[in-house]
Amino acid sequence: MPSNRQIHLDNRPSGEALASNFKLVTSDTPALQMSQVLVRHHYLSLDPYMRGRMNDGKNYAQPQPLGQTMIGGTVGEVVDSKHPKFTVGDQVVGMGGWQEYSVVDATQLGALRKVDTTHVPLSAYLGAVGMPGVTAYYGLVKIIAPKIGDTVVVSAATGAVGSALAALAKARGCRTVGIAGGPEKCQYAVAELGFDACIDYKLHSTAASLSQAVAEACPNGIDGYFENVGGMVLDAVLPRMNAFGRIAVCGMIAGYDGQPLPLSYPALILTQRLKVQGFIVSEHMEVWPEALTELGTLVATGKLRARESIAQGIAAAPEAFLGLLKGKNFGKQLVKLV
Amino acid sequence: MPSNRQIHLDNRPSGEALASNFKLVTSDTPALQMSQVLVRHHYLSLDPYMRGRMNDGKNYAQPQPLGQTMIGGTVGEVVDSKHPKFTVGDQVVGMGGWQEYSVVDATQLGALRKVDTTHVPLSAYLGAVGMPGVTAYYGLVKIIAPKIGDTVVVSAATGAVGSALAALAKARGCRTVGIAGGPEKCQYAVAELGFDACIDYKLHSTAASLSQAVAEACPNGIDGYFENVGGMVLDAVLPRMNAFGRIAVCGMIAGYDGQPLPLSYPALILTQRLKVQGFIVSEHMEVWPEALTELGTLVATGKLRARESIAQGIAAAPEAFLGLLKGKNFGKQLVKLV
Repeated sequence: MPSNRQIHLDNRPSGEALASNFKLVTSDTPALQMSQVLVRHHYLSLDPYMRGRMNDGKNYAQPQPLGQTMIGGTVGEVVDSKHPKFTVGDQVVGMGGWQEYSVVDATQLGALRKVDTTHVPLSAYLGAVGMPGVTAYYGLVKIIAPKIGDTVVVSAATGAVGSALAALAKARGCRTVGIAGGPEKCQYAVAELGFDACIDYKLHSTAASLSQAVAEACPNGIDGYFENVGGMVLDAVLPRMNAFGRIAVCGMIAGYDGQPLPLSYPALILTQRLKVQGFIVSEHMEVWPEALTELGTLVATGKLRARESIAQGIAAAPEAFLGLLKGKNFGKQLVKLV
Repeated sequence: MPSNRQIHLDNRPSGEALASNFKLVTSDTPALQMSQVLVRHHYLSLDPYMRGRMNDGKNYAQPQPLGQTMIGGTVGEVVDSKHPKFTVGDQVVGMGGWQEYSVVDATQLGALRKVDTTHVPLSAYLGAVGMPGVTAYYGLVKIIAPKIGDTVVVSAATGAVGSALAALAKARGCRTVGIAGGPEKCQYAVAELGFDACIDYKLHSTAASLSQAVAEACPNGIDGYFENVGGMVLDAVLPRMNAFGRIAVCGMIAGYDGQPLPLSYPALILTQRLKVQGFIVSEHMEVWPEALTELGTLVATGKLRARESIAQGIAAAPEAFLGLLKGKNFGKQLVKLV
């Protein structure tokens, strides 16, 4: 049995999440029971939603239990199997958590899914052709529902969700404008991800200043906004929304450490007759097949080339995750384990 | 030609609206041209949306022009007609404005509508069976879309919109909870309007305290919220929304004088996967027939007995309107002109 290094949640953050909230633990992988599969993880996905799970109390997801391996999406290969549908060498995606190996009960529906890496790299199943991609798809297609020629804006534009959103929105004939932090990300958004424009929020210290830049990048106003950030960015975008605009609220990473982030002008929801809707993609499994089909095609045909930030080794996961919360990543944040 | 007293908007408010923003003017009614109808107004409707029209600049409605008669809904009777479809004595509803008489081009679609007062009093066509009633209908039926057993909350519960909402929600098997100002209004809401409970917001100086009262009145949480007020009331209700709750934003009267009213915890839209949608009923004319049919039946059968606050004479309109903005009215605010 191989030795398995894991990251546990050791204690909950009060305010900002810290490396000391996590603990590296080494255990043995147990012997397989019937129907179980042993997966060696090649990549671990780090995603903003995990910050919410670190808190206790009422949240939109179950809190991560203390003293257990952090949850998270993983891709890897089957190294042992007692289930007839999986054989050694299969490439699989699952929710293996922050560890090097996982033992999966393959009879559990959706627990483990074989993937084809002929045209799509294995790591993409954690990003563009995985949960972040489907997240972009749901918010864009099911909430924003853009028409040709609409202007669609997304914050955290070069992240895993923003990258996928750009490709999906371009395919629908939208003017697509990103908001990201720093000149390098903004240049990349336009040059590589297909955004028509990208605004560097770090150049602006107030919502009013950022809002002016948004207005310049969106001369016809904004019809759809995909929100990953909240706070000042939302305050800057809201006044630029056109009548009957739609805002898909996917994340508010600016507030994940618990400080309240008020919305300055909620009356705009009324005066512009906006629809503002929050969602969690895992509650809409019905869209996954159609979304993954489109996203897989976009990746396979080179229309969606999402960048990855890759940390090396399980011990690097906590620092990489904390960096993600601060926007230090550039593209999809992964941890490479093999 | 009868002499016609009118209220003009003389100057725009800076901050709070004042009586000095208005001016009483007397003019003659002009001789009728072909297709025109002269209407003597019996009642003028005063509604919160008029406050927004008093401001200049980008708004969700055209600003009220200075030096012209304030717009507003009216009911009355035809006293002269040069249109074949209208005869003297017809009872009609229209947008005659803050004046005693109006000359209406009856060829203009929807400018003047004959009404039947056999089972519904004339004034009700400005309230329960008029724009406020349809407003309640649209927000409840088209945005909140409640299921039997859902808990629905409405602010400004004893106003024209809130009264209609209570009857419409009861007819759909909802637990219906109001928020109103003062013990008299709250008692009336339960005793006469059919609310299951009504919360007196004046007993609470903080959103946290009001929110606790909301929680007690809504033991199963809130599935639908119809917002007329904004500010502290919205802050108090939002944390009590159930997952997948719907908020119809009809008004934010607390902020109509221009002070910004932030929303303290917008992240709840995400964590509770809420849909928050603003609307203006005049943009959804397609629902008016079905709404007026149901509302007319509710009034005719005594299931909706909305109270009216009646000011006497056109000169009283400005003070009555300013009182409405402060919640001094009790039920639908009208001005009786005949």
